[in-house]
Amino acid sequence: MKIAVDAMGGDYAPQSVVAGVERARDEFKDVEFLLFGNQAQLTELIKDKERLTIIPTTELITMNDEPVKAIRKKKDSSLVRAAQAVKDGAADALFSCGNTGALLAAGLFIIGRIRGVARPGLLSTLPIISGQEGVFNLLDSGANADGKPEHLYQYALLGKYYAESVRGIDNPRIGLLNNGTEPHKGSKLTVAAHQLISADPSLNFVGNVEARDMANGSCDVIVADGFTGNAALKSMEGTAKGIMTMLKDAIMTSGVKGKLGALLLKPSLMKLKQRMDQSTYGGAVLLGAKAPVVKAHGASDARTVYYTVKQIRAMVAGQMIPKFTAYLATQQSREDS
Amino acid sequence: MKIAVDAMGGDYAPQSVVAGVERARDEFKDVEFLLFGNQAQLTELIKDKERLTIIPTTELITMNDEPVKAIRKKKDSSLVRAAQAVKDGAADALFSCGNTGALLAAGLFIIGRIRGVARPGLLSTLPIISGQEGVFNLLDSGANADGKPEHLYQYALLGKYYAESVRGIDNPRIGLLNNGTEPHKGSKLTVAAHQLISADPSLNFVGNVEARDMANGSCDVIVADGFTGNAALKSMEGTAKGIMTMLKDAIMTSGVKGKLGALLLKPSLMKLKQRMDQSTYGGAVLLGAKAPVVKAHGASDARTVYYTVKQIRAMVAGQMIPKFTAYLATQQSREDS
Repeated sequence: MKIAVDAMGGDYAPQSVVAGVERARDEFKDVEFLLFGNQAQLTELIKDKERLTIIPTTELITMNDEPVKAIRKKKDSSLVRAAQAVKDGAADALFSCGNTGALLAAGLFIIGRIRGVARPGLLSTLPIISGQEGVFNLLDSGANADGKPEHLYQYALLGKYYAESVRGIDNPRIGLLNNGTEPHKGSKLTVAAHQLISADPSLNFVGNVEARDMANGSCDVIVADGFTGNAALKSMEGTAKGIMTMLKDAIMTSGVKGKLGALLLKPSLMKLKQRMDQSTYGGAVLLGAKAPVVKAHGASDARTVYYTVKQIRAMVAGQMIPKFTAYLATQQSREDS
Repeated sequence: MKIAVDAMGGDYAPQSVVAGVERARDEFKDVEFLLFGNQAQLTELIKDKERLTIIPTTELITMNDEPVKAIRKKKDSSLVRAAQAVKDGAADALFSCGNTGALLAAGLFIIGRIRGVARPGLLSTLPIISGQEGVFNLLDSGANADGKPEHLYQYALLGKYYAESVRGIDNPRIGLLNNGTEPHKGSKLTVAAHQLISADPSLNFVGNVEARDMANGSCDVIVADGFTGNAALKSMEGTAKGIMTMLKDAIMTSGVKGKLGALLLKPSLMKLKQRMDQSTYGGAVLLGAKAPVVKAHGASDARTVYYTVKQIRAMVAGQMIPKFTAYLATQQSREDS
């Protein structure tokens, strides 16, 4: 398989991108990489050119660029050229650590939607925060600010296919993010979405889930509109970061006794920090596009890039998109006949 | 001032309610209490009847009752009778630790809205989670699942009056919960709300705030629709609780060395736990009702009850509602002329 990489996107690009890609290339012998970016910089950084092709580009989309405009104007940017390669069939997936909006726009307008998908959604992988270990998926975590019931129903289907083919979960448990657990609870949007999702017997729908219980391990996939999903996700991130800061401050101001205590407790605290560390969980995926379109966060280091490539490989190898496309086609022909 | 107390609502009622009310009565000499509930139980629990009147009631609204129906049918419940006392002018505020939906219904349908308020919203007080200490207010944290731009604008006004008159903050900083910081970002709802709020020069509007930064101390009041506000609030609560559990588990499985470390670090960990403890921050307030309608959580102990009474006293003494009512009346007469 071939992955098209926007080598210039991200705070530490192209260094961290190249380093992460080389690590992944060494481990995954079935993956080839097309690296789009500044030829001189990439040539200097790359240690070994095996299964790794530089495609020179001259433009760069920055974090400050207006997404849709950037995609239209910067035709020779590393991102647009990488997306174009996927559209043309020269690569199987698109990967970037750059401007999220621009990557979503490239996914929607260059690579395009799967026929029958109304609104692709962004799927995030997050740690379970409770006694047990593991992760869960949340989608839409921010692609569409104004969701409709049919979109949420499709997210449930897309989430099911992702959890099955990428995470290897049999009959994944799907929950709907809501403000109460009873089926009649919620906004107009979630009440209607609940009806659509619960009416599909192919889904292992566990019902409404409150944001408080989102990360407790009771669901494999949580479905939300992009605005609420984004708020719940960022509230989780901000709270986790804030508590870790408060814990650090508490230790730093605790005197000799407290510092000694922290030293003795260090292995446990590191384990906790590791559990919360999202860099090993892979990037956010625009589900519903014709190919995997994956975004790792802007501050990604080589390790995050490596893990995101691993995730993309699982998506391609697990045939998630062909399977989902075939499923939708069957549904449509059934409706047509 | 007089506070009407639903003495039977809550997991530990009436014991914890009576104990908390007696503590508050001893401290706040200007407050009288009307305790609505089972006469025999209350008589047995009360130690000192000073400024404390039992109003016997025979019915009880449970956590499982359907709110609006319960309000209509259980006319002699402690909650309905307490709300009726506020409506009739026999008390200045309503307090309950019972069924939230029923309390909101009692606030809306028995006590009623301030003239000109479209949709009362629920205001919560939450800890700042970062280097600095303090609290912030979030509203609507869950009264209305389907918000409109005008509702969010009124929440900004209500939040301003609350922060000024109850928390004593001069010109409080108001933020709008959104999925990005730029003014054009957001859902249709938040883009329109941003325009309304930023057009009012009486508001110290700091703009959009992402859920990640909600609790970092940059705002005194965060405005949101009730569905998103609820998701952000519960995600914060769930994450904080989950991390504390994980921290405890990490310590418990860390062997002798780790446990010794935790012992040395105990004062710091307790300080952290205290900062996260919401029981001292007061209850959730239905802002926009004609009197303070305040809900402490179901599991409230005497301490939480005491702090919630303290908050209600500040609302009544600070004249928040008369001031806000007068402000709205001025606005309306200006519009009419």
